[in-house]
Amino acid sequence: MPSQHIQLFVTGGTFDKEYNELTGELFFKTTHVNDMLGLGRCRLPVRVETLMMIDSLEMTDAGRQLILDHCAAATAQRIVITHGTDSMEHTAAVLGRGMLGKTIVLTGAMVPYKFGSSDGMFNLGTALAFVQTLGPGVYVAMNGRCFPWNSVHKNRELGIFESTVPNDTM
Amino acid sequence: MPSQHIQLFVTGGTFDKEYNELTGELFFKTTHVNDMLGLGRCRLPVRVETLMMIDSLEMTDAGRQLILDHCAAATAQRIVITHGTDSMEHTAAVLGRGMLGKTIVLTGAMVPYKFGSSDGMFNLGTALAFVQTLGPGVYVAMNGRCFPWNSVHKNRELGIFESTVPNDTM
Amino acid sequence: MPSQHIQLFVTGGTFDKEYNELTGELFFKTTHVNDMLGLGRCRLPVRVETLMMIDSLEMTDAGRQLILDHCAAATAQRIVITHGTDSMEHTAAVLGRGMLGKTIVLTGAMVPYKFGSSDGMFNLGTALAFVQTLGPGVYVAMNGRCFPWNSVHKNRELGIFESTVPNDTM
Amino acid sequence: MPSQHIQLFVTGGTFDKEYNELTGELFFKTTHVNDMLGLGRCRLPVRVETLMMIDSLEMTDAGRQLILDHCAAATAQRIVITHGTDSMEHTAAVLGRGMLGKTIVLTGAMVPYKFGSSDGMFNLGTALAFVQTLGPGVYVAMNGRCFPWNSVHKNRELGIFESTVPNDTM
Repeated sequence: MPSQHIQLFVTGGTFDKEYNELTGELFFKTTHVNDMLGLGRCRLPVRVETLMMIDSLEMTDAGRQLILDHCAAATAQRIVITHGTDSMEHTAAVLGRGMLGKTIVLTGAMVPYKFGSSDGMFNLGTALAFVQTLGPGVYVAMNGRCFPWNSVHKNRELGIFESTVPNDTM
Repeated sequence: MPSQHIQLFVTGGTFDKEYNELTGELFFKTTHVNDMLGLGRCRLPVRVETLMMIDSLEMTDAGRQLILDHCAAATAQRIVITHGTDSMEHTAAVLGRGMLGKTIVLTGAMVPYKFGSSDGMFNLGTALAFVQTLGPGVYVAMNGRCFPWNSVHKNRELGIFESTVPNDTM
Repeated sequence: MPSQHIQLFVTGGTFDKEYNELTGELFFKTTHVNDMLGLGRCRLPVRVETLMMIDSLEMTDAGRQLILDHCAAATAQRIVITHGTDSMEHTAAVLGRGMLGKTIVLTGAMVPYKFGSSDGMFNLGTALAFVQTLGPGVYVAMNGRCFPWNSVHKNRELGIFESTVPNDTM
Repeated sequence: MPSQHIQLFVTGGTFDKEYNELTGELFFKTTHVNDMLGLGRCRLPVRVETLMMIDSLEMTDAGRQLILDHCAAATAQRIVITHGTDSMEHTAAVLGRGMLGKTIVLTGAMVPYKFGSSDGMFNLGTALAFVQTLGPGVYVAMNGRCFPWNSVHKNRELGIFESTVPNDTM
């Protein structure tokens, strides 16, 4: 019988960016996912593990393989991955083609959690709900919606995720 | 064919409480749900309607009947209800026994949205995800979890929701 | 030679109120003044001491005498007092009539620091600046202004402090 | 008789930086100073005028001359200038050598106001208090302290402002 806990893999992305007050630049320190789960009063058995802390524009094939390997090796049947939005659909595709038979949900944020007006808390909530209720497959949870890995793309002009299926507005 | 939009009924609760700086008391003005959906960059077709703005300790049988009537009359098949946590399980039970054949998810918050460290954004995210993926029934979405209406109660000492089913920790 | 540090006495008030998520009521725990000084990157030699943690509507003659005694006994020549706004002018009057020959500035907030949109950070900044630059006397620092103790009152309808001197708008 | 209002000139700086969610970069839109004055419930007669919106690393001699010209032409005797911290001391020096006979206080922030944990509200409070109480001269208000223009420098390693006068710790 598969483990009942939810595995959450952190890979970085806007979610976790911080402001360096000495240099005035954005950077990564450690993940805020545990703080966010605490703030959300989440009582799910979530295990958080940081795989990398990078901007998703810097995500490489090797990085995606590493994520796939960790998903395959995880004892959990249900996995959430926090990821930068710029290349989320590409990582989702690698995981989708990996056909692991698990429920994997990628999510991220357009505004850093630390900058106050983040969509991160909302997205993390949707991702953890979708991962509990959807069957095996790889999904992207953004903008309140859940997209299968093979029919999602980020609209960079609007900063939102859209379905690539015609007339699919929900 | 049922309507594709999600109906969101606001009834008040901690979610929407504000601080009155002149009297130093908590009170209700108008709902923050639309702000929260905007902050979460939600792109779902959600229709928000305020049914009442009350502390759930003041929820009456007549109030619960009003909510049930609105759920029955709604053209939407999928309904989210924001509600105070203190009597959420009782309203859920009235809706559950109503057997409307719709997917109805109640959610709320332990800390007002306006007070910064709210669990409201997270809970709203989970509720909107659960309502899209679960079949007909009445559920409470709190603490990242989703409870059927007939097996949930609020643990007032800990301020969390628990299953009334033995050994059900997720 | 008088000590160079600034003494900051905490007495409670809206400044330090918190939300009790279990009861839904406002209450006092410990002061946030140290957090606020850290957030403001204050580098002044400020010594913080909590004298009481009460709503200023509950401030008694004995409480005011206690504050006066502490101001008299303090080695610092410059003293800031955080205080609820409702009776701030009365405590200021007791200190003013005490004629201690020190610079004493009372300040407070209309919205709790923990509720995000507080005027507390701004007021604390003004109080610490006024206390460094004004001569001996007792003052109220609110709304960006500084009022002598014998010409200030709180306008409860507007929630602002005003001068009791005709035509004194600044 | 000089005008009683306080002139506030905005020049940009970290104070006013925002996060561009589409590009992930920091940028300037419009100033937040009016919002901040509202949040601080400031009741002073402050007139806000934006002279430029730039990172102070980009401040030129021509820019500093423009600020000096505006200070000279202002009807107000008391002037606050929001400015990036990196070259604040250089602009202060230009204004100081200009010998305008007015009270001019420069202030800024290490963290953008919009990023939640800003020192901006505190610094703005100190600047508005110092400008009301100090005599003619040019000052830098940072870290709760007020430095004359000819004895201040920013310690870039610590991110704080220090006096260049030996043993001047307050």
